[in-house]
Amino acid sequence: MTTETSLVDSALRNWNQQIERLNKVFALRPEPQLQQEIAPGKNRLIYIWGHLTSVNDALIPLLGFGERLHPELDAMFVKNADRAVPIISAEDLKHRWNEINERLAAEFAKLSPADWVQKHTTVSEEDFKKEPHRNRFNVLLSRTGHMAYHIGQAMLASGQE
Amino acid sequence: MTTETSLVDSALRNWNQQIERLNKVFALRPEPQLQQEIAPGKNRLIYIWGHLTSVNDALIPLLGFGERLHPELDAMFVKNADRAVPIISAEDLKHRWNEINERLAAEFAKLSPADWVQKHTTVSEEDFKKEPHRNRFNVLLSRTGHMAYHIGQAMLASGQE
Repeated sequence: MTTETSLVDSALRNWNQQIERLNKVFALRPEPQLQQEIAPGKNRLIYIWGHLTSVNDALIPLLGFGERLHPELDAMFVKNADRAVPIISAEDLKHRWNEINERLAAEFAKLSPADWVQKHTTVSEEDFKKEPHRNRFNVLLSRTGHMAYHIGQAMLASGQE
Repeated sequence: MTTETSLVDSALRNWNQQIERLNKVFALRPEPQLQQEIAPGKNRLIYIWGHLTSVNDALIPLLGFGERLHPELDAMFVKNADRAVPIISAEDLKHRWNEINERLAAEFAKLSPADWVQKHTTVSEEDFKKEPHRNRFNVLLSRTGHMAYHIGQAMLASGQE
């Protein structure tokens, strides 16, 4: 492995680790438990899971892979707070979660290190010349951190900190 | 910037972003507020801050930069649960937090991309040949995620999720 492929490999391992942790927290849990709040009056587990599913789905256009698979998740889990609007079932959510992550994994595998440091789709060519850190790799790292942020909250529901 | 320096730059930006968020959550908050629990019966903010300070301090030997600056933090914030043993004051903690992060930033700045993919100090040369992902960069990413994980919890104390 060259230095650059090794750097990308570490970031993808880190991404996958968060996905696996989330599978343990959410996908392997019986549905009734997903209705649990992470703390009194705070988000339910299912809302956090939906939120992460929607944010991961939005990576598809942001990284230039194509159209979102499930834009309908945004209204349920990003634009509205928990309990504000009806949401899909845990089973439907699990299906979307897996579908989106499989698509991302397939797209990630096609990118070379040079592709990773290319601009993401919401920055203009002009701005990217001045701010070359607004690249795909930066998005990958920040969304990996976003998963970790909410895993920290979700673990509270299991009595772990 | 080459591809490999750009990849490392993104990871360091991500690290710094988490440090800045933690400064907002902890270092800029008046001391009495740090006694607040993130949720009823859960860790206090000051404990989480101390925990992250101690874990960051442990990066110094792990990444081969030298001896820990404050190994005494381990007993207060890693080996024991919150409230189990007496801890230092917020002022003393803030001083250590800044000292440790400044030292890490100075050491990080000296590493080339090739240095980042070298092994960390707790893996043997032999194991590293089989598992080359056990490198410094992987440690950096996983500790950045560790900060994000606890930031997610700490934000609950501010009524944010």
